[in-house]
Amino acid sequence: MQYNYDVIVVGAGHAGCEAANAAAKMGSSVLLITMNLQTIAQMSCNPAMGGVAKGQIVREIDALGGMSGIISDKTMIQFRMLNRSKGPAMWSPRCQSDRMKFAEEWRWALERNTNVDFWQDSVQELIVQNKELKGVKTRMGMSFYAPSVVLTNGTFLNGLIHIGEKSFGGGRMAEPNAQGLTEQLVSLGFESGRMKTGTPPRVDGRSLNYEAMEEQKGDENPSSFSYLTKEPIKEQRSCWITHTNEKVHDVLRKGFEKSPMFAGRIKGLGPRYCPSVEDKINRFADKNSHQIFVEPEGWETVEIYVNGFSTSLPEEIQFEAIKLIPGFEKAKMFRPGYAIEYDYFPPTQLSPTLETKLISGLFFAGQINGTTGYEEAACQGLMAGINAHQHTHQLNPFTLSRSEAYIGVLIDDLINKGTDEPYRMFTSRAEFRTLLRQDNADERLTEKGFELGLASQERLDTYLQKKQNVENLIQELKSNKLKPTEANPWLESIGVSSIKEGAPLINFIKRSDVGFEHFYKNEMLIPILKKYSTEEIEQAEIIIKYESYIDKERKMVDKMKSMEDLQIPPQFDYDKIKTLSTESRIKLNKLRPQTIGQASRISGVSASDISILLLFMGR
Amino acid sequence: MQYNYDVIVVGAGHAGCEAANAAAKMGSSVLLITMNLQTIAQMSCNPAMGGVAKGQIVREIDALGGMSGIISDKTMIQFRMLNRSKGPAMWSPRCQSDRMKFAEEWRWALERNTNVDFWQDSVQELIVQNKELKGVKTRMGMSFYAPSVVLTNGTFLNGLIHIGEKSFGGGRMAEPNAQGLTEQLVSLGFESGRMKTGTPPRVDGRSLNYEAMEEQKGDENPSSFSYLTKEPIKEQRSCWITHTNEKVHDVLRKGFEKSPMFAGRIKGLGPRYCPSVEDKINRFADKNSHQIFVEPEGWETVEIYVNGFSTSLPEEIQFEAIKLIPGFEKAKMFRPGYAIEYDYFPPTQLSPTLETKLISGLFFAGQINGTTGYEEAACQGLMAGINAHQHTHQLNPFTLSRSEAYIGVLIDDLINKGTDEPYRMFTSRAEFRTLLRQDNADERLTEKGFELGLASQERLDTYLQKKQNVENLIQELKSNKLKPTEANPWLESIGVSSIKEGAPLINFIKRSDVGFEHFYKNEMLIPILKKYSTEEIEQAEIIIKYESYIDKERKMVDKMKSMEDLQIPPQFDYDKIKTLSTESRIKLNKLRPQTIGQASRISGVSASDISILLLFMGR
Ligand SMILES: Cc1cc2nc3c(=O)[nH]c(=O)nc-3n(C[C@H](O)[C@H](O)[C@H](O)COP(=O)(O)OP(=O)(O)OC[C@H]3O[C@@H](n4cnc5c(N)ncnc54)[C@H](O)[C@@H]3O)c2cc1C
Ligand SMILES: Cc1cc2nc3c(=O)[nH]c(=O)nc-3n(C[C@H](O)[C@H](O)[C@H](O)COP(=O)(O)OP(=O)(O)OC[C@H]3O[C@@H](n4cnc5c(N)ncnc54)[C@H](O)[C@@H]3O)c2cc1C
Repeated sequence: MQYNYDVIVVGAGHAGCEAANAAAKMGSSVLLITMNLQTIAQMSCNPAMGGVAKGQIVREIDALGGMSGIISDKTMIQFRMLNRSKGPAMWSPRCQSDRMKFAEEWRWALERNTNVDFWQDSVQELIVQNKELKGVKTRMGMSFYAPSVVLTNGTFLNGLIHIGEKSFGGGRMAEPNAQGLTEQLVSLGFESGRMKTGTPPRVDGRSLNYEAMEEQKGDENPSSFSYLTKEPIKEQRSCWITHTNEKVHDVLRKGFEKSPMFAGRIKGLGPRYCPSVEDKINRFADKNSHQIFVEPEGWETVEIYVNGFSTSLPEEIQFEAIKLIPGFEKAKMFRPGYAIEYDYFPPTQLSPTLETKLISGLFFAGQINGTTGYEEAACQGLMAGINAHQHTHQLNPFTLSRSEAYIGVLIDDLINKGTDEPYRMFTSRAEFRTLLRQDNADERLTEKGFELGLASQERLDTYLQKKQNVENLIQELKSNKLKPTEANPWLESIGVSSIKEGAPLINFIKRSDVGFEHFYKNEMLIPILKKYSTEEIEQAEIIIKYESYIDKERKMVDKMKSMEDLQIPPQFDYDKIKTLSTESRIKLNKLRPQTIGQASRISGVSASDISILLLFMGR
Repeated sequence: MQYNYDVIVVGAGHAGCEAANAAAKMGSSVLLITMNLQTIAQMSCNPAMGGVAKGQIVREIDALGGMSGIISDKTMIQFRMLNRSKGPAMWSPRCQSDRMKFAEEWRWALERNTNVDFWQDSVQELIVQNKELKGVKTRMGMSFYAPSVVLTNGTFLNGLIHIGEKSFGGGRMAEPNAQGLTEQLVSLGFESGRMKTGTPPRVDGRSLNYEAMEEQKGDENPSSFSYLTKEPIKEQRSCWITHTNEKVHDVLRKGFEKSPMFAGRIKGLGPRYCPSVEDKINRFADKNSHQIFVEPEGWETVEIYVNGFSTSLPEEIQFEAIKLIPGFEKAKMFRPGYAIEYDYFPPTQLSPTLETKLISGLFFAGQINGTTGYEEAACQGLMAGINAHQHTHQLNPFTLSRSEAYIGVLIDDLINKGTDEPYRMFTSRAEFRTLLRQDNADERLTEKGFELGLASQERLDTYLQKKQNVENLIQELKSNKLKPTEANPWLESIGVSSIKEGAPLINFIKRSDVGFEHFYKNEMLIPILKKYSTEEIEQAEIIIKYESYIDKERKMVDKMKSMEDLQIPPQFDYDKIKTLSTESRIKLNKLRPQTIGQASRISGVSASDISILLLFMGR
């Protein structure tokens, strides 16, 4: 046992696990302190990883050398690539997870990391001297020391659970909350706030009638999150879809007066894009039906997660209402839904490394920064873990820009714009989302991860090999041609227009009505494809088909970069630009940035505001 | 979801799980309410099942149709039959368990039982009308109804955790305690008391030096707990043995003044036979070393359980001391040891079915009755679950006598003698322990379990087949003979005295210097053994070799039974029998039982006291 570490991580949720793993892989001795070793990497809410924009984040974590992708791959029970019918910027991997196995695999992964020590306890106080972090004190009275500490307390800080008219302290249902830290941080000068989130009831899968629901199978050719995973999942479990109806809503409405949210007992703001069902009924009073996803919790268990039915109404109301959902007529509940309120710290108090501005060596990551979601938490944990290591060893801080990664967008948004409601990632938050695709996260990040000492040689080699193969494939497509006589019978057979002159293969892929899936229908072309993996073929297709979009965004990024130091005339009259957003105009007028770079970092000033500015400055 | 059940079980520890499973298998609709569905069947302390007298209990649970044996078999990482060198009454199966898998398998087993519903919540109040149990109320404000309720709250009732000078509420480390129930029960007229127990620190297996310890492997030919298990465990993990020394003790002594036990902050009595290490040092001041068993917590995890080092001294002291144990020089701790105090209800308030005398339909099982240990809890749960089912359906109560099962001994001890300190089973508590062997639990109990509708047909058939085979084997041994010419070269080769006249094979087994293991060295005998399983051969050997002991105990049981109604003369002078224990003399004088049966059930009057009485009455 040691009392001195390079890095201490407080909390072993998704943020804490990535933080501990990253710092330790990079060579730091890490102490991971968490309230209960039995609940490491517990999924507090839905048993799923990824989804729109979130799946991209998992791929980025993986590309850098984090673990969330690998763990998800090992423990998934279903995989789907969402939005395949849309442009590649929207493709988003998502899986259902086996909740218990997910936590188990994380635990074992951390145990295998010989630089990670564990200590089960609750941190109650930070040891701070002259605005420098020195260590932590625990409830059991222990003191541990490190130059860098990452706080990842999730929903535990003064957590208060609500169901109907009852409320009681807790960090998650049946787990105690964490006290003391908020109060100390506030006394040190931090500002804190209150947020809330909620979770739906769990039901007994044996009591459901699946015939009344629509089956949602996993992908036929599932892929995976990690660039290292060789074998995608073989067997899969289905999810099911059903809907609420007016009867359900009527019953739920009966509970509104006892709702902790509507009655004003809950002060904190909840996640707008993950609202409770009562919230949906209230806000969208004209909608008489909402979708419900019926998701199994694992391979073996019969427990079912009722996605879309998050609620903190009294349990009798939850019961009564749930039984009116088609397929749920005989539903038995295992656990009721509930809401939880907790302390967070407005993330504008952080620098881009996730270090707090007030206390050197103190990092915040995850839900404590006002975000919601496992993926958002995990990527912050990773970045904080990396920077905690760098800080302890006096190495350069590591940050990602908005054009390099969703992680960059997330942190940039948080620290510059802050957030009043739980922050969740969306593709729309990224200006350069055609660049930030799930297929190219390795291209964007793996070399950086490797340089940091986080991504392994194997990971780098895998990426370089893939990159080489994609280039080779594109080269082959350029140098191989089809004559009209070779191409036309095939083109006719797939029902698209024929060609008059011979053309290199790449020209076919450039067409919007032909894709590699059609190449498989032409005997001459199959041998070429055989040499490449599905991932490589998909990526080549994206690069070819979306070349112009990608180029455009790249140029925009370059322009923004070159404009970084462009001086704004001191007397520049923002008021004359009517197309600027009002918020932006007010802030620019007030803060009067000297350069475009400075302007772009002002909270409330968006990328499009900057474009407008540049236009007016004649660029 | 229902609000009305046949049986409600509160708590899903070892007692609660067996109770819910039993009642449900017998046909009751069961609601299992527990604070956290994630911690079903959590092993609060050591990752092991069975052991001396406890292993016999697991076999009994299994024979009746309970699950503890099956779950243990599925999740063991090591198996040993303890005391093989002693008489068969002492043979005791014991296994190391994978802590996580044990809990998982229990959960799945319960989920597969379609009569069991689950509800995650904390029961705070009983609904009682006219001394009849009607249902329970939960913290979330739900009411559920059933004619029978089994309380199995374990260490959670007003649980208070102690480490050094700190103490805080909790049911186990990092789990909240349960409030309200004790207070209500006391107001209903129950007497409650306080007990304590403790657990050792957990360490990081990667930090230990196993070369400084003695390896303890599993059995070479492991068997299993369940009579249904066909394939014993194949691969096993080793445990390790090391010792404390004076240096360790000196460091621990430094913490004595901060010890919650020695300083008097802990009021409850702890388990005398499972003492904390500070207790051992204090009580056995002349012993300068105590044994430490180093036990892995599972297949994958590196966490290690330090058996024998239970402590509630301040953690710095725990650290400092543990590092002085050979092999622990570089030990890293994961979690400190701690003690917990909790409410229990003196079990003299129960009838033999584990129903409370005060409230009809209310059953208590497990640690709440002042016992300690998973096996003790599990078997009470099983019996309470059976009797809750019987009660709800107005069927006959089911009890076991002291001569039928350790379970009978345990319950008889509890309800008649009560207990001030955590009650643990020992072989010495059973008068008829040659009858209560681990090999014949099926013979004693499977038919009963089957009649109850608990043990399956498969289980009954397995038992009947085994019984038949053992009889066949004994018959073969009786009817096959060896001539001196056939026997003597073999007897010489195994180094025992030769024979003069031909003898049936059974005679050889009766000899103390020959056993079936020697039969394998005689080519002529192998074909006979080949027809039987190891278990059958072992049992036949026990029956043959220990025939006279077994007979003697059986006769004693019969005698006791026939004496049950034997009248004691009303003026019988107990004072003249000096060999009676003082306690017994006082109680007999005071209560003046009318029959020997009544006398034997008086707390404090032991079986040997009864023998003495019979002697004096001329029987
Ligand atoms: C009821 C509920 C509903 C939710 N609903 C949604 C949803 O609908 N959508 C969504 O995207 N997200 C939801 N979430 C949020 C999601 O679970 C979190 O975003 C994610 O788990 C945050 O990860 P984290 O690592 O920041 O914190 P957590 O996963 O909360 O982990 C915190 C960890 O820190 C430990 N800890 C806390 N304080 C201390 C201390 N002082 N000392 C030691 N250890 C400590 C805890 O034991 C825990 O291990 C919900 C969470 C809850 C609890
Ligand atoms: C720190 C510690 C050390 C121990 N040391 C030893 C030892 O050295 N040797 C030994 O033999 N035994 C030891 N034990 C005891 C052993 O763990 C217990 O004997 C055994 O687990 C008791 O089983 P049980 O089913 O009675 O209760 P538990 O296993 O304690 O289970 C109780 C269950 O009830 C639930 N519960 C409690 N109250 C409520 C409520 N109001 N509503 C809903 N659910 C509720 C809990 O969540 C839990 O699931 C120790 C226990 C602890 C906690």
